[in-house]
Amino acid sequence: MDYPSGDIFIGEIIGTAILVLFGAGVCAAVTLHHSKARASGWVVISFGWGFGVLAGAYTAGPLSGGHINPAVTLGIAVESGVWDKVPVYVAGQMVGAMLGAVLAWLAYLAQYRANADAERSQPTLGGFATIPEIRSPGVNLVTEIIATIALVLPVLAFGLTEGLGTSGTQTLIVALLVVGIGLSLGGPTGYAINPARDLGPRIVHQVLPIPNKGTSDWGYAWVPVVGPLIGGAVAAVVFNAAF
Amino acid sequence: MDYPSGDIFIGEIIGTAILVLFGAGVCAAVTLHHSKARASGWVVISFGWGFGVLAGAYTAGPLSGGHINPAVTLGIAVESGVWDKVPVYVAGQMVGAMLGAVLAWLAYLAQYRANADAERSQPTLGGFATIPEIRSPGVNLVTEIIATIALVLPVLAFGLTEGLGTSGTQTLIVALLVVGIGLSLGGPTGYAINPARDLGPRIVHQVLPIPNKGTSDWGYAWVPVVGPLIGGAVAAVVFNAAF
Amino acid sequence: MDYPSGDIFIGEIIGTAILVLFGAGVCAAVTLHHSKARASGWVVISFGWGFGVLAGAYTAGPLSGGHINPAVTLGIAVESGVWDKVPVYVAGQMVGAMLGAVLAWLAYLAQYRANADAERSQPTLGGFATIPEIRSPGVNLVTEIIATIALVLPVLAFGLTEGLGTSGTQTLIVALLVVGIGLSLGGPTGYAINPARDLGPRIVHQVLPIPNKGTSDWGYAWVPVVGPLIGGAVAAVVFNAAF
Amino acid sequence: MDYPSGDIFIGEIIGTAILVLFGAGVCAAVTLHHSKARASGWVVISFGWGFGVLAGAYTAGPLSGGHINPAVTLGIAVESGVWDKVPVYVAGQMVGAMLGAVLAWLAYLAQYRANADAERSQPTLGGFATIPEIRSPGVNLVTEIIATIALVLPVLAFGLTEGLGTSGTQTLIVALLVVGIGLSLGGPTGYAINPARDLGPRIVHQVLPIPNKGTSDWGYAWVPVVGPLIGGAVAAVVFNAAF
Repeated sequence: MDYPSGDIFIGEIIGTAILVLFGAGVCAAVTLHHSKARASGWVVISFGWGFGVLAGAYTAGPLSGGHINPAVTLGIAVESGVWDKVPVYVAGQMVGAMLGAVLAWLAYLAQYRANADAERSQPTLGGFATIPEIRSPGVNLVTEIIATIALVLPVLAFGLTEGLGTSGTQTLIVALLVVGIGLSLGGPTGYAINPARDLGPRIVHQVLPIPNKGTSDWGYAWVPVVGPLIGGAVAAVVFNAAF
Repeated sequence: MDYPSGDIFIGEIIGTAILVLFGAGVCAAVTLHHSKARASGWVVISFGWGFGVLAGAYTAGPLSGGHINPAVTLGIAVESGVWDKVPVYVAGQMVGAMLGAVLAWLAYLAQYRANADAERSQPTLGGFATIPEIRSPGVNLVTEIIATIALVLPVLAFGLTEGLGTSGTQTLIVALLVVGIGLSLGGPTGYAINPARDLGPRIVHQVLPIPNKGTSDWGYAWVPVVGPLIGGAVAAVVFNAAF
Repeated sequence: MDYPSGDIFIGEIIGTAILVLFGAGVCAAVTLHHSKARASGWVVISFGWGFGVLAGAYTAGPLSGGHINPAVTLGIAVESGVWDKVPVYVAGQMVGAMLGAVLAWLAYLAQYRANADAERSQPTLGGFATIPEIRSPGVNLVTEIIATIALVLPVLAFGLTEGLGTSGTQTLIVALLVVGIGLSLGGPTGYAINPARDLGPRIVHQVLPIPNKGTSDWGYAWVPVVGPLIGGAVAAVVFNAAF
Repeated sequence: MDYPSGDIFIGEIIGTAILVLFGAGVCAAVTLHHSKARASGWVVISFGWGFGVLAGAYTAGPLSGGHINPAVTLGIAVESGVWDKVPVYVAGQMVGAMLGAVLAWLAYLAQYRANADAERSQPTLGGFATIPEIRSPGVNLVTEIIATIALVLPVLAFGLTEGLGTSGTQTLIVALLVVGIGLSLGGPTGYAINPARDLGPRIVHQVLPIPNKGTSDWGYAWVPVVGPLIGGAVAAVVFNAAF
């Protein structure tokens, strides 16, 4: 379908903002002090992100198809050979990801403020961007590539060559697919699998006045951008070869 | 669709009663002594409330569309400009929420009675209404506004301009959306996102003869009413501007 | 739909056997020593039973509609006024529930055998029938009535007046409804909400040669039979009055 | 439907690789040191495998129907009497399972490398193949037979006589069925219920250069191959008799 550029831009902003609001929110929920969901575990993280995809992609669906992820947009472009709307998609996704991170910070403002208590303060980047469990950029890159192939190849095979949010049942399946990626492949790097989801909130983390917020870890920032882009492109090539 | 007022009233009573029976029930299940689900965590709370939406909205669907939430009713009214049935919806929702809270209390009667043991007694409001983790009304209000936008904006975008319970797949998606809101945005305030869900059971908590029940916390009661109403209205304005 | 009696009998045996295989299985999984799922919590119990409904009802659907629960059969009979097939349904359900309990015991045979170690032995009824957390028959009965209304009223309202297993999406919704009942209303009594599910496996527990198996608790056995039957009938009366 | 052999082979490789990538991945996620999902419990294992079925079967659907399991292929062959494509299916499944195990190992490479630290090293087979909790081959075989019947009989009854991945809703139901089998019947043996899923990764474990990897446990390897095959055949016989 041929969405107008204005609709794409608005749709991707809204959809990606919802995705990151849920995703950054659930990371804050599980990691911050004074949260009812504190220490509730990896199952909560994975379902929170997955249902963020459900909400974001399906909301954006009528406007843009609901890519809400530059790796998906890239995969669809490689698959179809149509590239002209890619910049609009990615621009909307980046704006939306930053907006979503600000909203999640506002929702958890009392918790982030409580970080001013120096004795109980903790690093806060985890509520914004991914942090590898074992830092080893090349290996981390491989993990992100594999996890993103596990997202984009099924998305293309499901016939979602216009986006994730174009049918209720399909969007639900993609959401549960993302839950599965989190559960299964999120252990090493925290599964960015989406450059906007990581870079946007990292910028926001750099800018926001959070007390004792700790590093924004720019040395690692290229991995969750480059890895998912490679993964999305590889998935499209495999798809075109096999299907 | 134009539901008759009598059907709306009955439908919203039944649907909201089921919602709150599940929701107040799961809060009792996780927090009370002598419950098999005691301390089973935030994932149980979130899925319990979400599947309460599934059951309540889909049951009420044929009678009223299954709003079961004044913030949803308000959002639909702002979006459509049709206000005449709003009072009937809200009246049914309030009656239903109180009925559901009484049913949940009856289901956990043995556990609430065990609270008479003064040494092991505990506050009981958590099985009825929301309690913020960090009390800061303005900030808590912001959290409730954001979380309710995250409910009502997708609901409107999903094309559910008559209610949540009008299609099986859509109702399921809304239910999982609510699970996601709980997981991701429930940490600070316990996510009322529904004035009837909070105020109705709070009234019931005030009235019921629960031993050592503790405060009904009326000082906080306006936040989970006003916040969701603002959120529902904002969502409708954003929807009308963007879609 | 008018299913032949032979199909009903076979269908309900298979469907209820699958339900109880999953349900008794998950209770064994969580409670027995030497199980990989040991102590994995209430969320596992609730999803295990719910997906047992999914598997059992949908498998039996083409043969019998997939009631797999005398309380559902009773509710449909009260609602429709058609009673002639009720005995066939219930007979199949009881046979199936006993068969399922035997299969679950066989699947966990090594774990039940390990109970011969007297020092680590534990009561085993939990892998077969329900046990109230606080024993108080009248109050327990109320809990079972309310929890069963929360099953049967939605089932009737969903238009499933022939059974749970007649459509994929509907069966999925019922399964998640049952997950929700477990999470929200299972805390006090373990939510039988199905006379066959409780009585059949209790008989099997009485008969099987499990070392150190402990009591089959016949004093309580009437509650999870009578409560669900009352609940199913009440749900049908409410449904006929409201819809 | 009559899929071309080349498509079947490619489809089953891709689908089974995705299944095992998710499944071996989630086992690594939960069991290895330095994983964010470490010790997150049986619910994570079960949902990870189930959503691996969702992703793998639905991706392979258009090419092969998405069997991704020799026990399913065998069940369909016994049910239908059509055997000529069975070798192609099984060959693709074995190649795919090995490929998936390699990908999961690559995704968790940093974690497996950390096993070189002799003091914190741990056996690694759990990230590849199943290990019984109580070793007793005959009893373990019974568990695998029952668990596989609980997979293949519903699959056949759901009308999925061409494969798991032929409809979105059906594939979702099968995925949740597999989650349920994991939760309910996985406790004793870790539920192979799929010969390729166990044997393929076991071969890979034997070959890969993982430090301190421990045994590949070939003495047990026949159980998760023979048990599921018996279970698949029994399910088809029961299906043909009952339906």
